[in-house]
Amino acid sequence: MKGGTARSRKLALRPPSDPYAVPEQSSSTASVKDAHALPKSIKLVEVGPRDGLQNEAGQVPTAVKVELVERLAEAGLRTVEVTSFVSARWVPQMADHAEVLRAIRRKDGVAYPVLTPNLQGLEAAVAAGAKEVAIFGAASETFSRRNINCSIEESLARFVPVLRAAEALGIPVRGYASCVVDCPFEGHIQPEAAADLARRLFDLGCCEISLGDTTGRGHPASIARMVEACARVVPMDRLAGHYHDTYGMAVANIHASLRLGMRVFDSSVAGLGGCPYAPGATGNVATEDVVWLMRGLGVETGVDLEALVSVSAWISACLGRPPASRVARALLAKGGGGEACAGPA
Amino acid sequence: MKGGTARSRKLALRPPSDPYAVPEQSSSTASVKDAHALPKSIKLVEVGPRDGLQNEAGQVPTAVKVELVERLAEAGLRTVEVTSFVSARWVPQMADHAEVLRAIRRKDGVAYPVLTPNLQGLEAAVAAGAKEVAIFGAASETFSRRNINCSIEESLARFVPVLRAAEALGIPVRGYASCVVDCPFEGHIQPEAAADLARRLFDLGCCEISLGDTTGRGHPASIARMVEACARVVPMDRLAGHYHDTYGMAVANIHASLRLGMRVFDSSVAGLGGCPYAPGATGNVATEDVVWLMRGLGVETGVDLEALVSVSAWISACLGRPPASRVARALLAKGGGGEACAGPA
Repeated sequence: MKGGTARSRKLALRPPSDPYAVPEQSSSTASVKDAHALPKSIKLVEVGPRDGLQNEAGQVPTAVKVELVERLAEAGLRTVEVTSFVSARWVPQMADHAEVLRAIRRKDGVAYPVLTPNLQGLEAAVAAGAKEVAIFGAASETFSRRNINCSIEESLARFVPVLRAAEALGIPVRGYASCVVDCPFEGHIQPEAAADLARRLFDLGCCEISLGDTTGRGHPASIARMVEACARVVPMDRLAGHYHDTYGMAVANIHASLRLGMRVFDSSVAGLGGCPYAPGATGNVATEDVVWLMRGLGVETGVDLEALVSVSAWISACLGRPPASRVARALLAKGGGGEACAGPA
Repeated sequence: MKGGTARSRKLALRPPSDPYAVPEQSSSTASVKDAHALPKSIKLVEVGPRDGLQNEAGQVPTAVKVELVERLAEAGLRTVEVTSFVSARWVPQMADHAEVLRAIRRKDGVAYPVLTPNLQGLEAAVAAGAKEVAIFGAASETFSRRNINCSIEESLARFVPVLRAAEALGIPVRGYASCVVDCPFEGHIQPEAAADLARRLFDLGCCEISLGDTTGRGHPASIARMVEACARVVPMDRLAGHYHDTYGMAVANIHASLRLGMRVFDSSVAGLGGCPYAPGATGNVATEDVVWLMRGLGVETGVDLEALVSVSAWISACLGRPPASRVARALLAKGGGGEACAGPA
């Protein structure tokens, strides 16, 4: 592994047009007539190593996964979802989950949650050192049946033993709600359906509910209605926005949600993760793009954008394609190229 | 030319997940607490054939340019900027300006403006049939000198004879103001500098001022401040947003501007037009992405998205790359591929 060298490499900066210069931070939003007060900071949940890589057709080497998680934490991300303890039969890409979770060098103050669909997954995750886990349901009945082979009701019943066991171990459980505004099978999902699932996950004991626009067909109006419906039944500070950028709306949707008071957003370095319902299209919103937006708005993320773009260039090189992030592409084009994959062949 | 056949080809639609289905139109925005009233409709100014193609390194055949303009009008765009009457020495790609403008079959109700940097350009444009023209200045002193070789003051003086001659001919003149929030040389541009240029262009007689975020480094807060400053000195209905998507912020910036009352936006089919200051990065916001946003918000654009995506696929094939538009990519991935270039070899 030449990771150490690669990790320390910096992109060339060119003042006065320093590509990493903050594009005029917003010291005050008072001039924006209809702006709600923006927060000082938000929490980013990096889902690239899990939600991103699980969509990769080619098997990603375990060492690359481990390095990815470590470099993301080094770039300042405080929550990095590491892997998924699903059956290797279902998601072969995540078959090395225990190995990855055991191998990562952990950084103080960083959370390394993993997905655990059932009790067996939870036990394996805990055995491998998991301190935070996540479960996943859907706001669409059809999507639930197609994605996890059971109705929404059945899925919630299945979560109970996982949540009870996690509670006994003092392990926080995040709940993913997918298809909160649109479903690839059912089309539009009513805000009330999303809110109902969010409330039930919260009532079952989930510490945070991640609201997923799985198809990326949400737009600022439908996202706002969904967030408002969910915030009526779950405290806003327990809600997270998980928006896919398949139709280029994710940044606008995050901005709309931020203005409604949402303070947690999921994103994926380099925009890793395609859309399984539109092969060739982009999936998760890129972490770089969210960090760029927040910097512009004067909202802290704790992330070092330069380091993050370097990770983006490296993992994209490993996967043999340019980053899906527009910010990464623009900064790499200006700042002088990326970084070769330092991972094992 | 096999344009006729290509033009009539439809993408396969697959209900119930019809990719072109409107993703839940916003019948009311009342639920969005802080939303200003959104308009029933907006005007889109398609700049792909000019601002897009002028950034192409390879010479685009005249027949392809003509077909592009015609197909965009057929897709429902009411304003299609055709070409630029600049010197062929400066922009070789636009050397066939007169030929293109003469060749297009014009559609009733569609405006076909062209860029005219000086009196000579205006005369050539009018001789070739121009009924609307545009001039371009910059809100950054350094950018003005580098891009058009004169100070802002000198550029305004040069516009006077163009505006007087156009006025005498009854030809409306649009004014482009570039670098309204950020300059590749100077960095952040004060809103007052943008507003001052906008006001002077308006006072000189420009019917509409297009506010260009040339580097794409604007974000919803800086864009809002700039739009508000300009709207204090020029009526909002004479202002247009021309936002580049280089850093993935354009859709959010358009949404922010729309909420402030802006009703005209420039865009480029397939996101044609790179960023000369970040080679390899994206430039103009894609028309498809803007149409998608507006459909979601329930705002009319008059554009047939399916036809537009077909044009996007075709011109992208002609240029040998996929569309930069996320919406086009997602819909083409879902709907079953694009369309080969039907233009001449």
